[in-house]
Amino acid sequence: MGWAIALHGGAGVPYSLPPERRQPREEALRHCLQIGIKALNSKMTPLDVVELVVRELENIPHFNAGRGSVLTNKGTIEMEASIMDGNTMKCGAVSGLTTVVNAVSLARLVMENTPHIYLAFDGAEEFARQQGVETVDSSHFITEENIERLNQAKEANRVQIDYTQPIYNDTKSETETPFANGDSQTGTVGCVAVDSNGNLASATSTGGLVNKMVGRIGDTSVIGAGTYANELCAVSATGVGEVIIRGTVARDVAALMEFKGLSLKEAANIVIHERTPKGTVGLVAVSAAGDIAMPYNTPGMFRASATEDGYSEVAIWSEPIIE
Amino acid sequence: MGWAIALHGGAGVPYSLPPERRQPREEALRHCLQIGIKALNSKMTPLDVVELVVRELENIPHFNAGRGSVLTNKGTIEMEASIMDGNTMKCGAVSGLTTVVNAVSLARLVMENTPHIYLAFDGAEEFARQQGVETVDSSHFITEENIERLNQAKEANRVQIDYTQPIYNDTKSETETPFANGDSQTGTVGCVAVDSNGNLASATSTGGLVNKMVGRIGDTSVIGAGTYANELCAVSATGVGEVIIRGTVARDVAALMEFKGLSLKEAANIVIHERTPKGTVGLVAVSAAGDIAMPYNTPGMFRASATEDGYSEVAIWSEPIIE
Repeated sequence: MGWAIALHGGAGVPYSLPPERRQPREEALRHCLQIGIKALNSKMTPLDVVELVVRELENIPHFNAGRGSVLTNKGTIEMEASIMDGNTMKCGAVSGLTTVVNAVSLARLVMENTPHIYLAFDGAEEFARQQGVETVDSSHFITEENIERLNQAKEANRVQIDYTQPIYNDTKSETETPFANGDSQTGTVGCVAVDSNGNLASATSTGGLVNKMVGRIGDTSVIGAGTYANELCAVSATGVGEVIIRGTVARDVAALMEFKGLSLKEAANIVIHERTPKGTVGLVAVSAAGDIAMPYNTPGMFRASATEDGYSEVAIWSEPIIE
Repeated sequence: MGWAIALHGGAGVPYSLPPERRQPREEALRHCLQIGIKALNSKMTPLDVVELVVRELENIPHFNAGRGSVLTNKGTIEMEASIMDGNTMKCGAVSGLTTVVNAVSLARLVMENTPHIYLAFDGAEEFARQQGVETVDSSHFITEENIERLNQAKEANRVQIDYTQPIYNDTKSETETPFANGDSQTGTVGCVAVDSNGNLASATSTGGLVNKMVGRIGDTSVIGAGTYANELCAVSATGVGEVIIRGTVARDVAALMEFKGLSLKEAANIVIHERTPKGTVGLVAVSAAGDIAMPYNTPGMFRASATEDGYSEVAIWSEPIIE
C-alpha cells in the first residue's frame, strides 16, 4: 500500500451553490490537495503534511478557519484548532485565538513545546507571542462576507440571540435539522493523512459557528470529538460542534474499528449515518492500510482525496469530480 | 436493582498521609456521600444528585476544585467543570473560571440555557453574570496551602517552568511516573449516580494542575475525557489531564461496554490498568444496572460509594473503610 490523504472544507453546504460560490472553493480544494500530494510524494511525515495542508486551508478566505473565520455574536473572531499524531498519540489544541494567523501550527507548538495538550484564550495568545508565531490584528480575519453572514444569522435567529432556548430539543431526532444558529456556506477545515508505513495524523481548524456566544468552544479543538488519530486511523470531523462533542465522533470511528473490528468505511458510516442526527455532521478519515472514508449526513461536504496509486477526487455533493 | 452512587476527591494521593491530612478528607468524603445517599433516597434525579454532591465537594477546601483550587504558574485560579446526563446525552462544560463559586452549576446552566455545550474564560464569566450565579473575588479560592504548593512545584520543577521540554517522552511507558509538574495531595472531584430506573449522570470539577500554564485546559471539562454518561454508564475521571484527554478515558469505558459487550468493571479495569500509564489516572463509574467501579493506577484515590441496599464505603488506598 501507498500513502493516502483526505481533506475537507466543511459540511455546511446547501443543496446547490451558484458557480461563483462553488468554483473558487473547488479550486481551493484542488490546490490544497496538490500541496498534500506533493508533500507525501516527497516523504514528508503525515503530521507535517496535515499541518501544511490545514495552514493552506486557513489562509484561503473561502473556508471558515483562519482568514475566513466566521464571527461571534459580538462580531469578534475566536479561532480553534487541534492536531494529533497516530503513532505517539501526542496531540495539541488551541481555542479562543484572536490574532494567530495559523491556529493549527500553534496547536502543534502546544503539543511539542509545553507539558500540556490544550491552551485557550489569553493564555494561548500569550504562548503564541512567546513562540514567535505570526500574528496580525484581529480585523485581518474578518471578511465582508462574514459580517454579512453574522447580520443574516442575527436576523434569522432573532429568538435565539438571547440564548434562552436550547436549539436541540431532541438530539436523537431523525428529522432533517438545518445547521442551527450559524448555518453557513463555508465550514471548518481538516486534513488526514497516512504514509506508506501506516503512520497517521489528523488536524482540524475552524472559526466556529456564525453568531456563537463569546467563549464558546466547539468540537474542533476537542481531541476525540473533531480530531483523533491512533495506530488504526486518523479522523477529522466537521458540522455542528455540539453534536460532534456529544457523539465523540472522531474517537468513535477509531473505537468501532478497535473494539468491534469494523473496517474504516463501516465504522465511519455507522458514526455518520446511524449515530448522529441527519443534517449535522461529516468527516474525512484514512486508515493505516490506506483506505479513505468521507461520509456526511448534510446535503454536501467540501472534500478532496488522493492515493499514491494516482487516484484523486474533488467533490461537494454525491458525485465526485474525478480528476 | 436500586440506586448507586460513587464519588472521588482525586487520584493524586501519595502512598501515605499524616492523620491531619487524611482525616479531614475522609470526613469530607463521608459527608458528601451522605448528601448523595439522602438525595437519591428522596428520588432526586441523578443529574441533580451529581450536581449537588460536586457543589459540596467544590465548597470544601480540602479538594482541588472550587474553594481549594490549585494555582496556575502566575498564582491565579482557573477552574473547570462539566456535567452530562446519560439518557439525553445533554452535557455542559466550562473552563477558565476565576470568580464562580460552583463551576459545576455553571456547566449545568450552559447545558440548559445556551445552544452550546462549552463556554470558557471571559465568555463563561460573562455568562455567569448574566445567569446570576454566585461569584466572589478570585482571592476567595486561594488557600495558604495552595500558595505553598505552587511555591514547592516551582522549586521542584524549575526545569519545567519555561515549558520548553515536554514532560511525557513516552506516553505508553509502563514505568511508574509520578504526577508530573503539579503533583499534589489533593485532587479533582467528581460524582456519578444511577437511579433505580437506570437513569445515569456524571459531573467533574477541578482547579487543574499546580503550576499549570495560564490558559491550560485539562480533561475535566472535556466531554469523553474527564466526564461521560450515556444509557450504559456514567464515568468521572481524575489524574493527569493530558493522559486522560489522549486516552478519551471516560468515553472508552462506555465504548468498551457498548462495542465489546464488557461489564462495567471489566471496561473500567482495562482502561485504567491496560490503556493508561501507571501512576496517572483513576475513575469512578456506575452502570445502568447499579454496578460500581472505582479503579485507579495511582498509589491511592480519595473515593466513596454506596448502593440502595445499604452498602457504603469510604477509601483512599486499597483497603476500603467499610462503613
